[in-house]
Amino acid sequence: MKVVTFGEIMMRLMPPGYDRFCQTTSFNATYAGAEANVAVSLALLGAEAEFVSKVPCHEIGQNAVNELRRWGVGVKYVLRGGDRLGVYYAENGASQRPGKIIYDRANSAFALSTPDEYDWNALLSGADAFFFTGIDPALGENVSRACVDALGTAKKLGVKVFCDLNYRSKLWSKERAREVMTPMMKYVDVLLSNPPQISDVLGERAESDEKLFGLLCDKYGFEAVAFTGRDSKSASVNGYYGRLYTGGKTYSSRYYEINIVDRIGGGDAFSAALIYEMLSGVPAGECVEFATAAAVLCHSVTGDFNLVSKDEIGLLATGDGSGRVIR
Amino acid sequence: MKVVTFGEIMMRLMPPGYDRFCQTTSFNATYAGAEANVAVSLALLGAEAEFVSKVPCHEIGQNAVNELRRWGVGVKYVLRGGDRLGVYYAENGASQRPGKIIYDRANSAFALSTPDEYDWNALLSGADAFFFTGIDPALGENVSRACVDALGTAKKLGVKVFCDLNYRSKLWSKERAREVMTPMMKYVDVLLSNPPQISDVLGERAESDEKLFGLLCDKYGFEAVAFTGRDSKSASVNGYYGRLYTGGKTYSSRYYEINIVDRIGGGDAFSAALIYEMLSGVPAGECVEFATAAAVLCHSVTGDFNLVSKDEIGLLATGDGSGRVIR
Amino acid sequence: MKVVTFGEIMMRLMPPGYDRFCQTTSFNATYAGAEANVAVSLALLGAEAEFVSKVPCHEIGQNAVNELRRWGVGVKYVLRGGDRLGVYYAENGASQRPGKIIYDRANSAFALSTPDEYDWNALLSGADAFFFTGIDPALGENVSRACVDALGTAKKLGVKVFCDLNYRSKLWSKERAREVMTPMMKYVDVLLSNPPQISDVLGERAESDEKLFGLLCDKYGFEAVAFTGRDSKSASVNGYYGRLYTGGKTYSSRYYEINIVDRIGGGDAFSAALIYEMLSGVPAGECVEFATAAAVLCHSVTGDFNLVSKDEIGLLATGDGSGRVIR
Amino acid sequence: MKVVTFGEIMMRLMPPGYDRFCQTTSFNATYAGAEANVAVSLALLGAEAEFVSKVPCHEIGQNAVNELRRWGVGVKYVLRGGDRLGVYYAENGASQRPGKIIYDRANSAFALSTPDEYDWNALLSGADAFFFTGIDPALGENVSRACVDALGTAKKLGVKVFCDLNYRSKLWSKERAREVMTPMMKYVDVLLSNPPQISDVLGERAESDEKLFGLLCDKYGFEAVAFTGRDSKSASVNGYYGRLYTGGKTYSSRYYEINIVDRIGGGDAFSAALIYEMLSGVPAGECVEFATAAAVLCHSVTGDFNLVSKDEIGLLATGDGSGRVIR
Amino acid sequence: MKVVTFGEIMMRLMPPGYDRFCQTTSFNATYAGAEANVAVSLALLGAEAEFVSKVPCHEIGQNAVNELRRWGVGVKYVLRGGDRLGVYYAENGASQRPGKIIYDRANSAFALSTPDEYDWNALLSGADAFFFTGIDPALGENVSRACVDALGTAKKLGVKVFCDLNYRSKLWSKERAREVMTPMMKYVDVLLSNPPQISDVLGERAESDEKLFGLLCDKYGFEAVAFTGRDSKSASVNGYYGRLYTGGKTYSSRYYEINIVDRIGGGDAFSAALIYEMLSGVPAGECVEFATAAAVLCHSVTGDFNLVSKDEIGLLATGDGSGRVIR
Amino acid sequence: MKVVTFGEIMMRLMPPGYDRFCQTTSFNATYAGAEANVAVSLALLGAEAEFVSKVPCHEIGQNAVNELRRWGVGVKYVLRGGDRLGVYYAENGASQRPGKIIYDRANSAFALSTPDEYDWNALLSGADAFFFTGIDPALGENVSRACVDALGTAKKLGVKVFCDLNYRSKLWSKERAREVMTPMMKYVDVLLSNPPQISDVLGERAESDEKLFGLLCDKYGFEAVAFTGRDSKSASVNGYYGRLYTGGKTYSSRYYEINIVDRIGGGDAFSAALIYEMLSGVPAGECVEFATAAAVLCHSVTGDFNLVSKDEIGLLATGDGSGRVIR
Repeated sequence: MKVVTFGEIMMRLMPPGYDRFCQTTSFNATYAGAEANVAVSLALLGAEAEFVSKVPCHEIGQNAVNELRRWGVGVKYVLRGGDRLGVYYAENGASQRPGKIIYDRANSAFALSTPDEYDWNALLSGADAFFFTGIDPALGENVSRACVDALGTAKKLGVKVFCDLNYRSKLWSKERAREVMTPMMKYVDVLLSNPPQISDVLGERAESDEKLFGLLCDKYGFEAVAFTGRDSKSASVNGYYGRLYTGGKTYSSRYYEINIVDRIGGGDAFSAALIYEMLSGVPAGECVEFATAAAVLCHSVTGDFNLVSKDEIGLLATGDGSGRVIR
Repeated sequence: MKVVTFGEIMMRLMPPGYDRFCQTTSFNATYAGAEANVAVSLALLGAEAEFVSKVPCHEIGQNAVNELRRWGVGVKYVLRGGDRLGVYYAENGASQRPGKIIYDRANSAFALSTPDEYDWNALLSGADAFFFTGIDPALGENVSRACVDALGTAKKLGVKVFCDLNYRSKLWSKERAREVMTPMMKYVDVLLSNPPQISDVLGERAESDEKLFGLLCDKYGFEAVAFTGRDSKSASVNGYYGRLYTGGKTYSSRYYEINIVDRIGGGDAFSAALIYEMLSGVPAGECVEFATAAAVLCHSVTGDFNLVSKDEIGLLATGDGSGRVIR
Repeated sequence: MKVVTFGEIMMRLMPPGYDRFCQTTSFNATYAGAEANVAVSLALLGAEAEFVSKVPCHEIGQNAVNELRRWGVGVKYVLRGGDRLGVYYAENGASQRPGKIIYDRANSAFALSTPDEYDWNALLSGADAFFFTGIDPALGENVSRACVDALGTAKKLGVKVFCDLNYRSKLWSKERAREVMTPMMKYVDVLLSNPPQISDVLGERAESDEKLFGLLCDKYGFEAVAFTGRDSKSASVNGYYGRLYTGGKTYSSRYYEINIVDRIGGGDAFSAALIYEMLSGVPAGECVEFATAAAVLCHSVTGDFNLVSKDEIGLLATGDGSGRVIR
Repeated sequence: MKVVTFGEIMMRLMPPGYDRFCQTTSFNATYAGAEANVAVSLALLGAEAEFVSKVPCHEIGQNAVNELRRWGVGVKYVLRGGDRLGVYYAENGASQRPGKIIYDRANSAFALSTPDEYDWNALLSGADAFFFTGIDPALGENVSRACVDALGTAKKLGVKVFCDLNYRSKLWSKERAREVMTPMMKYVDVLLSNPPQISDVLGERAESDEKLFGLLCDKYGFEAVAFTGRDSKSASVNGYYGRLYTGGKTYSSRYYEINIVDRIGGGDAFSAALIYEMLSGVPAGECVEFATAAAVLCHSVTGDFNLVSKDEIGLLATGDGSGRVIR
Repeated sequence: MKVVTFGEIMMRLMPPGYDRFCQTTSFNATYAGAEANVAVSLALLGAEAEFVSKVPCHEIGQNAVNELRRWGVGVKYVLRGGDRLGVYYAENGASQRPGKIIYDRANSAFALSTPDEYDWNALLSGADAFFFTGIDPALGENVSRACVDALGTAKKLGVKVFCDLNYRSKLWSKERAREVMTPMMKYVDVLLSNPPQISDVLGERAESDEKLFGLLCDKYGFEAVAFTGRDSKSASVNGYYGRLYTGGKTYSSRYYEINIVDRIGGGDAFSAALIYEMLSGVPAGECVEFATAAAVLCHSVTGDFNLVSKDEIGLLATGDGSGRVIR
Repeated sequence: MKVVTFGEIMMRLMPPGYDRFCQTTSFNATYAGAEANVAVSLALLGAEAEFVSKVPCHEIGQNAVNELRRWGVGVKYVLRGGDRLGVYYAENGASQRPGKIIYDRANSAFALSTPDEYDWNALLSGADAFFFTGIDPALGENVSRACVDALGTAKKLGVKVFCDLNYRSKLWSKERAREVMTPMMKYVDVLLSNPPQISDVLGERAESDEKLFGLLCDKYGFEAVAFTGRDSKSASVNGYYGRLYTGGKTYSSRYYEINIVDRIGGGDAFSAALIYEMLSGVPAGECVEFATAAAVLCHSVTGDFNLVSKDEIGLLATGDGSGRVIR
């Protein structure tokens, strides 16, 4: 199974423990980005994951590549050039104090890369699936056009397309997002997005989630729609579950109560595990249990990347959430 | 708005994470003290906060000053001299294991400073409020007399006085505290203290909190009495709320369940926010919600200082305790 | 009170915080092992604790000795020689992600030590109790025979024997464990083990715990049987309690809900506190409350060793689990 | 003595110890920039130092302000707005391996600030000196024009101007630097720059340093020219000295051999100490000894800021370089 | 250029900074081993480097693989199985205190791997060179026989063989080393070893180094012999140089004085760079300058791996050892 | 061999690496004091070392005891009581920047302990030697009188007395020191002090060191006088040597050039090693080589304690200062 993901990889700078930005004297550096997160999860699950992106030709850029390589992601399609690697600062929340993210990603090597730098026929050759998110086109005209090229080629080559709407209000307006994303939907096979975001970006609403998803599948030809839900009791404790709509039916995962170590990346862990299971032909009910278990575990791992194994996810998905020490 | 606070600033030495004193090989150093904590909160809220104290003329003493300056507290009234900066060792509790504090504050530069070193007419000139706590007089005769001088001058200059009883059994007996504190009460406009402490220090009891506060306001002419309550389920989880009695009525905050990062300083955060709101003329109900939200957030921040912004407090005070990541 | 414990001490290597093995760049090093853990607890409680073992003649081996010495354990019976100190890698679990242990203890100095190296008449002279666990014989023929020698000598010298079955499937099969452990039981005065483990190792089952323990006491002449129970809600939150069966009756501790800092070593903390209390002639009900409180506190301390004082255990055992800061 | 400095403050991210960019998992964060470095040194020396700049309205921007405030620099002229704080990554060199710096400062709040945001009449009012460097105009047209405005106002108000040419090839070409910097020279009273840089930027050369400086003083009316020289034996050991040309004579400092802790900021430490001494009316020979001693000490302090006291500099300047422990 | 290296990869555990084993509470973990070190250097230089080895199927084993992958080493020939990853503990020396290494590598997955697990025809197919060291056969009969198989296949396939004698007295006696290594020499094309080691292992001596190397080339058909020399002034400062004998002539590098950050791995860095240069057809004099520069830089990098770029080595090799900061 | 040392043990708080007091956010905690340092060295050399002191009954006090116990020092004579453990803050120097120490030791449990708390007949029973330093009496009347008691008892019991003058100007004046120390000299067998200090405290001067020592031996009956000399080139590099005068002759050690890791404790390491060697009956020339080698190694170890083995000292004393890695 070969999956190509296309997106930005950033350096994530985080104060240690629960330190706030204002009090830290150091930052832990990891590497992250929705599409890179998905690629790492896929590689850890055993898929051949190729990451398409661009990073600057200096040590910080190379660090991002080395980190992907460390986890087994293919990096031969990562272009070099441009001036900077995007950065995001993340502050861990706790109890009633929310986590915080400050983006410093403008003018990154990836955001300024141009459509002609990507030869999608080559990049997608032999791929089973292509994954991108709404963050890609939100980075600007260049990346947006590169997405359109990728989608056309994917369709042509019979590569299945997974898209996470991933709306980010800091990057663009809902209006602009709708304008750009809507025409892309016809190329998408599986949509990852929850009802409020679907309303914001695609402008679709319905009286129930199931009706909404049915409507979307009819309109855009989606094979499936999936999302995760979160009951934010506090920054430390969340309720969590996943949903998958396909073949006219909704499949729900178990409901988890999570003591959070690191909130970021859960949705990407879900996407990756869902892609892996769907491409493996697993039944829908198992798909959503597995993908949700992956996302739940991601909350217990520092960093965006979901550094867990297929066996660990499987154990939780099939029911053991006791957390007993494995000797 | 200008507020003068008077008290000791100490170095706080804490093992990292949940390490116990007996196993640590290093201590994180922050700077703390009830009145300094209040000054920092006030400065972060936007008030002009002046801290009156004394520290030794060496690097450890200067560190305390630099740290106050960093957060915008005025330090021009911090005297230099004496031999040592008081120190307190703090061990974080967890679950059924309580936190622990070992004080090593005797003979500090501040405790040995003399009343004639403080020119209260100058120090309080232009101030809207003066804040001190029962720790000040507990440090000994010298500081106690300086407090009396300050109170007299405050009254004379029309500066509103806020006092936190802050009884510390390691520093003095209840009897001695009562003897010293009671005569000071007539200068106090707003008392910060809970019923058990009021009973210990002022010797007043009543069949209900409201009656007790009414009685105190009658007896000492307090404009208001306020306190925070804590249900200590364990060292990790606490229930928490605030109360403000004024104009014959009691105003209560929402009730919070807190996952604790650092327990120390919550009461000071409450005091500071209450001072800020009361001086701003905010209605009593909003005052107590805001002050309690400030105190709640303080439990999520390492160190005594409540390193949060007015906006962050406002957000929680007006209802969003979901802890969702702010991007 | 003098207690001799016999077993392996290992270096425990653990990534900081909640980091996973796969992402860590450093390991915190502590020293651990069921019998060493018990010795340290006993020394901290005030008993004379002698540890009998063998470590290699290099710095890593000496570190283990120094660490025991630091906590007041007698180390004059720790032999030197062999090639390596056993190591175990421990990864902290969180929420739904279980903790993990990787053992690398084969061929340790202790596992390869021979029965003739231990002069039990000297080692047990003047001792009130001897403690060992099922891990000892599981390390191989040599240590197994040394245990048999020790048990015979203990009986001869009137030294009370405490044994924790401590079955480890990575070290031996249930069949082999049963074959080796069963004949040792006649020397044991107090058995520490829960019903499932008793079934696995001793092959005994009954319709209730009380009946099972009665049956064991009859068959092997145990004075008492005790164990701790754990409701693993997740790797972060556990329910916990202790039981002691003696004189035909079962005594239960209070039930605790624990927010876990470090899971490992709780059972050993229980054993040590129980030994201490039983040898002190404390009534059974108090024994189990005290021992369980010790085990509960152990969950709040990083490392295997239960670095708490007798007073701290007493405070929790007699009812104060509020975790309020002790100033 | 009041000195106004104008420039960018950046966050400096550095791997711990001698770790390379490619192997680090964390960065120590300090705040830096030639003009900010000078402001901090001046404040530590006892001058009133005001820093004029612009930082974004988020926590990372505020950190830069808090850090300046901590050391006593006036920050009331630091504007807020824009999107990002410039960042530079610094890798410590060792032995034959050179240190490395990666700049990521484009599009910073300061670089994009416009001349009309700076009211120089107010900003320079009451100042004794104004300090800027060639980095300012190198950041672009906007800052360049702001410099020209500042210089005109300084001249008008009789504020003495100190300028460090500080040529950075990553920011602009020599040709562009010459074009922009040359017309500014007529406003400058004291030039800080070495002969090779003078040749690059101002295009002036002479057969000896003394002749070159004489020529410059004649041409531009400089009161003095000063610089530090470095014999780079390796990244760990450097020879170091200072020179000051004024009144037709060259004054040289002692020659130091330095074991380097942190190379960056030495020149700024020299500039600040020289400004302080010259404004204090100290004789030229003492000025250069003091300023060089300041720069030498800066090599022993981690971070750009020269966190040393006037007394410490004085002690070294007057001859004690023994490094004996001060008890 | 494709180079296959065959050997053990271990986890290296090192106390931070200059801490001694006896005082450390944590170990920094890196991964190392002579042949792995060479593979990483080759990958960083741009060669296709394949590492042949065996690691256990658990996280610690996988970490070693991930780390190699991170630096671009091919890991598809790393077998899985066995029980443990070898470990070595390293203590940094300083001044007159020597560094120390404690090996705990017996019974590793690699040491117990059997010759039949390695299909050398496949492993060496397409390779330009094969690298192994005397540590391989020192690990025991199994690995020794695997080496013999590899050497035969290399000869058959025309793959050039580089061998570092790397005698380790902790692993085997000189006599046993001579017995095993001597027959392997006829397969070796380039020998990496200094005269004392050659005397110990191969039993050859001569009145000058040049005569010794001539004799060896005659006897075994070596194309070249090379080594590095070290003048150990202290654990902090070493003199260092390289020598290459080929075509009847000796080529010497410049002489360096090094301030040491981390001593270990320098020889492997030399070997890798020499292999790279010789396979690239670079003249002998340049080869030895480049290889020595690589080894010198390795002393400035923490960990065994020589994490430097080809450009950085080239810069030093061609003469710039000033260590000036690169901006 | 049993040696009793009498003195204060303090907590030493030091910023990590070369961080200055003013910039640190944490302190590494070790335990130290001249007499405790000597006790630890003696224990590591294999002597029975008993430490006589007093520490407070809280965790910080117990930490000091645990640390001594860890290194094998006898602690049964460490009294409990009083309020605080003395603290000293130490800042590492580098290059031209001197190290710095801030003492905060007044009113420690030890300084306030009274002569009647020490039963010298019991404490010194069976001892071969007694060691104290001039810091003891400098702490005040109480400790001073305890010293006099100890000296009398030592004489009576035939216990050899070693005294390091250790003059500290922060604790007392030269005049006071002379008044107190001079009468103690008649009890001293071996004096550890250099000529300038002898002049300051004992008021003795002579035209050569040898004459001075001869004069002292005549006057006070010293068996020997010894000291170490230091050429402080900078805080990073020192020349170093030892001298021992006995039997009318001066014995000098080799001269070392040291790259300093941690300067503090070198003199105590010398004293301890000298005591050990002299009590072992080693010839004077070997004594001073061994003692100086111990002191030299101490400069390479972080913390006051000289954590080196007898073998390591012996290796350096007999000539190997190459610092080559020991595998």
